[in-house]
Amino acid sequence: MDEFALIHRYFAELAPGSGDDVALGIGDDCALLRMPAGCELAVTVDTLAGGRHFPETTAPRDVGWKALAASLSDLAAMGAVPRWFVLALSLPAADDRWLRDFADGLRQLAVEQGVALVGGDTTRGALSLTVTAMGWVEAGGGLRRAGARVGDRVAVTGSLGDAALALSLLQQAFDLSADPNRQALRLRLDRPTPRVAAGRALAGLASAAIDISDGLAGDLGHVLQASGVGAEIDAAALPRSPAFDALAPAGDAALALQLHGGDDYELCVCVPPENLPAAHAALARLSLPLTVVGEITAQPGLRLRCATGVRSLPARGYDHFAV
Amino acid sequence: MDEFALIHRYFAELAPGSGDDVALGIGDDCALLRMPAGCELAVTVDTLAGGRHFPETTAPRDVGWKALAASLSDLAAMGAVPRWFVLALSLPAADDRWLRDFADGLRQLAVEQGVALVGGDTTRGALSLTVTAMGWVEAGGGLRRAGARVGDRVAVTGSLGDAALALSLLQQAFDLSADPNRQALRLRLDRPTPRVAAGRALAGLASAAIDISDGLAGDLGHVLQASGVGAEIDAAALPRSPAFDALAPAGDAALALQLHGGDDYELCVCVPPENLPAAHAALARLSLPLTVVGEITAQPGLRLRCATGVRSLPARGYDHFAV
Repeated sequence: MDEFALIHRYFAELAPGSGDDVALGIGDDCALLRMPAGCELAVTVDTLAGGRHFPETTAPRDVGWKALAASLSDLAAMGAVPRWFVLALSLPAADDRWLRDFADGLRQLAVEQGVALVGGDTTRGALSLTVTAMGWVEAGGGLRRAGARVGDRVAVTGSLGDAALALSLLQQAFDLSADPNRQALRLRLDRPTPRVAAGRALAGLASAAIDISDGLAGDLGHVLQASGVGAEIDAAALPRSPAFDALAPAGDAALALQLHGGDDYELCVCVPPENLPAAHAALARLSLPLTVVGEITAQPGLRLRCATGVRSLPARGYDHFAV
Repeated sequence: MDEFALIHRYFAELAPGSGDDVALGIGDDCALLRMPAGCELAVTVDTLAGGRHFPETTAPRDVGWKALAASLSDLAAMGAVPRWFVLALSLPAADDRWLRDFADGLRQLAVEQGVALVGGDTTRGALSLTVTAMGWVEAGGGLRRAGARVGDRVAVTGSLGDAALALSLLQQAFDLSADPNRQALRLRLDRPTPRVAAGRALAGLASAAIDISDGLAGDLGHVLQASGVGAEIDAAALPRSPAFDALAPAGDAALALQLHGGDDYELCVCVPPENLPAAHAALARLSLPLTVVGEITAQPGLRLRCATGVRSLPARGYDHFAV
């Protein structure tokens, strides 16, 4: 199949020719986009590779959704409004049905979040998807990693560990369609919800933010390093979903999933105590839990408080070259 | 090597923390960028895969240069000013020396063109580089593919076929360092110059433009299709470099390299006749030849005039899924 025909057939619906803030869409040398006045352009890039960032058995619709979700999650963590994305797609073959389903999953999330596909490139190779997502945030209003201050509360949206538990069950050959709890976990792995609305709501209230894609410990570690502070978090406070509660292994294995598992795509924010009530209220309006899990400290490093005392946690993220 | 250490070690020099139009550089969830007022954001994405878009033997410095050049060439064809790029890098292993040299080649072009690296992602896999390049163009001033009108002259910058001839010689196991002509061709293959200044100079003068990355016939074909017109081009007019003249095969084989070879990274522009003198003068100031090679016609399709008469040319681009 011709590269241009392929894009036109499957992605045209995602890719407006023009209109709104797209002056010129896909199909020229560049897209031309209109930024609102008084705003900064927010840009992020993420690659998902088959067998590395998602199981090879992942349904193409879920691959499409997740590839976009991963990048939108970064915009969410900046408090930005996602508007546009470009997609570089590497595929072993131009499989008609795979592409149709992939584009369908991508479209679902793009429509839900109001983002337009404005550029693309396709090459033949191992399955890999690189999404560069763009949006805007009010000048000076971005939620940076470097703003955490001693005494800020550390809070997370939603629940932690669901996706990592789903992956662990899959690797043990469990059928994730078998019951409602497993289905719920599978959705958290394959259809993560980028917390865009939460990021917008927290932008005036939080002092720092990051999205949790490589595990809370590693990602919070980036905030601590950028801010020049430490933190103590409380193991018992880490939010668990009902499905996680029902299916998680006992004790430290569950804790490890919540601290070091990937693919949560929740936000971790640092909130000055005086802003906590407003932050809770804002997320309540979105029907999304916000749970305080710890506090920023002057003492550097990341520490975990659990039943047996306080211990240090390694504060490094998932490293694709170490595995 | 840690993904973050890797970026910091090799790419930090390319990646300003802040300053000028970078409010926040690499190292947070997103970069935050400042657009000039009254401008549109121009965005393009290109993937170069090892063994597909460049020979596996290409020096890492040249790979770095070329990966950025390919995307900047798209911005040039829009008449845009390149300012920023993000890089998704897939590498078989974190090879220290390879990365150092790759970053060095990338840096050379980035500095020459004044563009900043503002985001990146690294994964392990087959060698592949996806660059999303961004810049700006005055609102309404972009050089689109769809503007060609009957009677416009078709012109190209520089010379055609050099890179394709270099690749052909490499495939025949010629040593491209052996003499000055071969060295000149090798530079055209490995170190293409994105015609950014030419694109800026032609933005008020040309009616349509495209960069020639997949061969003149295919790329001009996109302009014709977008503009709803045809063109007749003159085989004898296609500009040849001295090195091409010295080393090209005889007759139709040389013509095929000029019409269908890839990697020229020249601009093909359509210019109303009354603007031709100004266009020639503007490119003379850049010491870059602009050669009229044909004319836009009401008759659809692309035709080639040669010594034996006029014949139709297939007007389709290089297709990664067809080879």
